[in-house]
Amino acid sequence: MVILGGGNVAQHLAKAFAKSKRVQLVQIYNRKGVTFHQIPVTQDLSKLAKADIYVLAVSDDAVEEIANQLPDNQQLVVHTSGSVSMEALASHTRRGVLYPLQTFSKDRSLDYATIPFCIEANNKADFQLLETLSKSISPAIYSINSEKRKKLHLAAVFVCNFVNHLYQLGYEITEENGIPFAILQPLIQETAAKVTQGTPREMQTGPAKRNDQKTMQKHLEMLALPEKKEIYQILSNAIAQTHGRKEL
Amino acid sequence: MVILGGGNVAQHLAKAFAKSKRVQLVQIYNRKGVTFHQIPVTQDLSKLAKADIYVLAVSDDAVEEIANQLPDNQQLVVHTSGSVSMEALASHTRRGVLYPLQTFSKDRSLDYATIPFCIEANNKADFQLLETLSKSISPAIYSINSEKRKKLHLAAVFVCNFVNHLYQLGYEITEENGIPFAILQPLIQETAAKVTQGTPREMQTGPAKRNDQKTMQKHLEMLALPEKKEIYQILSNAIAQTHGRKEL
Repeated sequence: MVILGGGNVAQHLAKAFAKSKRVQLVQIYNRKGVTFHQIPVTQDLSKLAKADIYVLAVSDDAVEEIANQLPDNQQLVVHTSGSVSMEALASHTRRGVLYPLQTFSKDRSLDYATIPFCIEANNKADFQLLETLSKSISPAIYSINSEKRKKLHLAAVFVCNFVNHLYQLGYEITEENGIPFAILQPLIQETAAKVTQGTPREMQTGPAKRNDQKTMQKHLEMLALPEKKEIYQILSNAIAQTHGRKEL
Repeated sequence: MVILGGGNVAQHLAKAFAKSKRVQLVQIYNRKGVTFHQIPVTQDLSKLAKADIYVLAVSDDAVEEIANQLPDNQQLVVHTSGSVSMEALASHTRRGVLYPLQTFSKDRSLDYATIPFCIEANNKADFQLLETLSKSISPAIYSINSEKRKKLHLAAVFVCNFVNHLYQLGYEITEENGIPFAILQPLIQETAAKVTQGTPREMQTGPAKRNDQKTMQKHLEMLALPEKKEIYQILSNAIAQTHGRKEL
């Protein structure tokens, strides 16, 4: 395998595959020459090593561009993006996707055994190849086509990126009031843990769920910035609507 | 101790204090006569047992009303609400607050050792009494006055109730597209786990953070309901603003 990319996803995948005994990671390409995990690095696309699989772990915009620069040598070329179609690799006869559904941050070590890999290929043999490859680092392999993958990526934005921004808003409220953010940690962890046991709808609590107008009014008064008031209002309305429908 | 209330908070506190060797939970009061953990229950306020502390684990609206129905026998009366001031108990000479900062759902067993208790009292001796009491079930005790507690409760709505609704939106997207919700679980857990290691701002990822307009446009097109588009837009803008300020 050759991994192309120098960002968080490339680094995390390199780390995971470097440890796998079933996969031989022979080279990494990136323009900046970022080295990691003692794998040989090249900054020159024309000096790519021979491999069975080329993994493009690059930004969404760069997928097609870099794919077009690789000669079609009948090797399997895959990308790792949640929102780019497999057809962005149409310049390659054998193409596929290996999308790790996780949030990758620098300096954060991950348990790869729990990362779901969403795989897709344009022929059955390559699908099986990707399956074998992913199974060498994770037991959670899903067959997801480009259309479903885009929806899944959208869902991931809600449950990860937007959720993290709500943590940020909670952080700002504690900071502004001289309260340690740590006090919110057990609540954050329990809120996440709860949805492994039931649907989010069953687990919903709070003033919007109870239609507690008094508390919601007090909360809105405490929020000074109109942008924050708006977020409060719109999410409270959405919760009210979700739970109001029950009575209809 | 006597606990007044029959909801999730009352039940969870009863369970925790029933196990504590330092506290004797002698009675539970609630109108419906809900029994739990083999503790004697009364439905009659005039038949309350004698105790050193009366804990009002009732709904926000009921705190003052029930407090006013209890005679002021110079015993400590506390409530457990995040958004009600201690002064709602002004009919009692000795008053305080014992606010467990956690989300309590039915049928969900909790590790009480990790629940932060925010305590407040109108005199030092009672503060110490509440401290001893809370320490018998949790090591995480914080001194938080009514003003700060209201802010903390607001922060909790963001990091718990609103976060759970974003899980719900992710759930709906997976359900509508025949994708198992379970595939999002590792992402949900990792997103929560990450903020124990750094600030939410440092941990932010995703299209809004990267200002990836193309992906955000595609996402908006996929969301059919205007309410969901609005949530997507408003949270993406908030992330952009939080991270744009860095460059100013």
